[in-house]
Amino acid sequence: MTKRNPHLSHLKPTYLFPEINQRKQHYLAQHPHAKLISLGIGDTTEPISPHITQGLIEGASRLGTRAGYTGYTSEQGMPLLRERIAENVYHNRITAQEVFISDGAKCDIGRLQALFGSQVSIAVQDPAYPVYVEGSLIHGVRHIHYMSCTPQNNFFPELQKLPPVDLIYFCSPNNPTGAVATRAQLTELVRYAQKNRAIILYDAAYAHYIQDPTLPRSIYEIDGAREVAIEMGSFSKIAGFTGVRLGWSIIPLELTFDDGTPVIRDWNRLTTTIFNGASNIAQIGGLAALDTQGLAEMQALVQFYLENARLIQEGLKQMPAAIYGGINAPYVWIHCKGQNSWDVFQNLLEQVQIICTPGSGFGAAGEEFIRLSAFGKRENILEAVDRLQSFRL
Amino acid sequence: MTKRNPHLSHLKPTYLFPEINQRKQHYLAQHPHAKLISLGIGDTTEPISPHITQGLIEGASRLGTRAGYTGYTSEQGMPLLRERIAENVYHNRITAQEVFISDGAKCDIGRLQALFGSQVSIAVQDPAYPVYVEGSLIHGVRHIHYMSCTPQNNFFPELQKLPPVDLIYFCSPNNPTGAVATRAQLTELVRYAQKNRAIILYDAAYAHYIQDPTLPRSIYEIDGAREVAIEMGSFSKIAGFTGVRLGWSIIPLELTFDDGTPVIRDWNRLTTTIFNGASNIAQIGGLAALDTQGLAEMQALVQFYLENARLIQEGLKQMPAAIYGGINAPYVWIHCKGQNSWDVFQNLLEQVQIICTPGSGFGAAGEEFIRLSAFGKRENILEAVDRLQSFRL
Repeated sequence: MTKRNPHLSHLKPTYLFPEINQRKQHYLAQHPHAKLISLGIGDTTEPISPHITQGLIEGASRLGTRAGYTGYTSEQGMPLLRERIAENVYHNRITAQEVFISDGAKCDIGRLQALFGSQVSIAVQDPAYPVYVEGSLIHGVRHIHYMSCTPQNNFFPELQKLPPVDLIYFCSPNNPTGAVATRAQLTELVRYAQKNRAIILYDAAYAHYIQDPTLPRSIYEIDGAREVAIEMGSFSKIAGFTGVRLGWSIIPLELTFDDGTPVIRDWNRLTTTIFNGASNIAQIGGLAALDTQGLAEMQALVQFYLENARLIQEGLKQMPAAIYGGINAPYVWIHCKGQNSWDVFQNLLEQVQIICTPGSGFGAAGEEFIRLSAFGKRENILEAVDRLQSFRL
Repeated sequence: MTKRNPHLSHLKPTYLFPEINQRKQHYLAQHPHAKLISLGIGDTTEPISPHITQGLIEGASRLGTRAGYTGYTSEQGMPLLRERIAENVYHNRITAQEVFISDGAKCDIGRLQALFGSQVSIAVQDPAYPVYVEGSLIHGVRHIHYMSCTPQNNFFPELQKLPPVDLIYFCSPNNPTGAVATRAQLTELVRYAQKNRAIILYDAAYAHYIQDPTLPRSIYEIDGAREVAIEMGSFSKIAGFTGVRLGWSIIPLELTFDDGTPVIRDWNRLTTTIFNGASNIAQIGGLAALDTQGLAEMQALVQFYLENARLIQEGLKQMPAAIYGGINAPYVWIHCKGQNSWDVFQNLLEQVQIICTPGSGFGAAGEEFIRLSAFGKRENILEAVDRLQSFRL
């Protein structure tokens, strides 16, 4: 009789968001008229902007015409979209051939781990987006190093303490801490990878939230990164494509395994075998997002959510807690020293009917923290800011 | 230094379609004015029908409005779409809760194998869609049984000769043979699985090409199948969604692993971890495809391609070869006894400038066969039929 994949038994039951939902439902059952405001999950709320929506509509409409219909697109993505990403996102630091279009960073992380198999050792930031560890566990990875990122180390891992690993997941701007790695820090990361022949899996899903021109938006702004890093990008948080599903991964030609095999060769084989391309409608929308007007619209959307982040920080001024993130990132990370994350969650819910995400849900080093998301409708953010004035930690 | 995933080294370089393309380019270089007709790859050619296109446009348009915008959809899919599939495709033989929306059957096959891991033994039909074996190899599967499907056994495997295996991939209507399993045959398959506690992965991507009401369109029409079978379906070939990307998998509640764990529980965990839902625009299109008008339009599209298949068979009448498939299936499977598949490919190309798919590309038992696809524009099919009159095998 068919056995379970033993790897799956290493996944804990999902805990964080179901627990949040359960507590929310419990509260609503007792307070049926409560008006809750969610600053929890990082889900976009603003409509897709006009020009980019028009791109999506055009992508759908043409499929209904003899002249415009297309069947399968190439698994690697539409050539023109790959070119626009190389040009307009990476300013030709990478080439179109190195861009692989995906249905989003989360899905690609699942496939990327298949590229490396079960025998690799990995390092992840703690706290971190849960998919890095869980995607690795599904593929049977056993050796996982947690790199603590706290105020003590300015949210950047102490790489000198890290033993040699094969893969390092790194996210900047960071989810959940909102920390943005500096050029010096990313250089240190690349040097670690060069020295230890490790591969960096660089999650740049929030890169466009970086407004400070001295901070790198891509790992490829660092010399030598092409030999050691894969970068993942996404339209989700910059074009509101969370539900549309469109992202990409960059696999530089120079990146090789220890036997000299180019990683891009295996990735191409994997992608063409177990993936069938992102939706052609989403890709046409992505093309619109990357022309002059689309880029301006995405920048305006980013500004909108960054203003939300600023307002939230304003609202937190009176709180006796250290506030991090939220400047070049859509997440505000709050240190409630000496308090349990879940207790703060419950307090926020009961006192001011605001839902946050408890930091401990992202890893042990997230204990004592909560995350507030700047993805929300402006009226809700303003109302939340107002309520935060009366919150007592 | 990071090693390759050893599983990937078991994948052969892709051979079939690159080789076809290379021969095509070689021919075109020598005959630059040749007008080639491709009956090779199974890619849809007809525009998406009006009502379903309108659904896609509506799905895109509403994302541009405050009232209609939605962010992440649930990883399992939109509840209403899951309900419509349960009702209108499965006539409530399964429930909405058992339907998991995907971005297509190929992608889901990649994830499904992660559900079972590397220790399982699998059986596949020979010839078969290459992704079953390749997806399994990526996950480290070593024990693969090839079940020969030829005219001698009416293209149905001799299950009494098959040792106990954990998983059986089965495709009906079959790609590439066009064979459609009867109720008696599927009952035999389900009984094998029950007896050996195996799980059937039933690929029903072409189910709606079955027009004969005595032939089952779903494995769940067979008693006991809910305890032993997963079924995969797709909008690709019935709504022209090859590029739009929308499909589903059915995981019945009764299906368990040997330790009693419901498969649906692991699948839900896997899906929510390494997948983020199919595009919301595609899902709104899928909703339109499954209302009364959409179903009628899909049936008309299926009839169009089936008429192509009939025309192709007409054109082959004079050929001294046995013709299979093409009745309740979009593929015509031609037995060119004693001839090498690639030789026939080359002959077709040189004599009448038609591209086919050599059967040996689908497995050893496909040798001596070629596959002609009924997916094509009518004018090209008619021209191909005309040319086939003068073809000498």
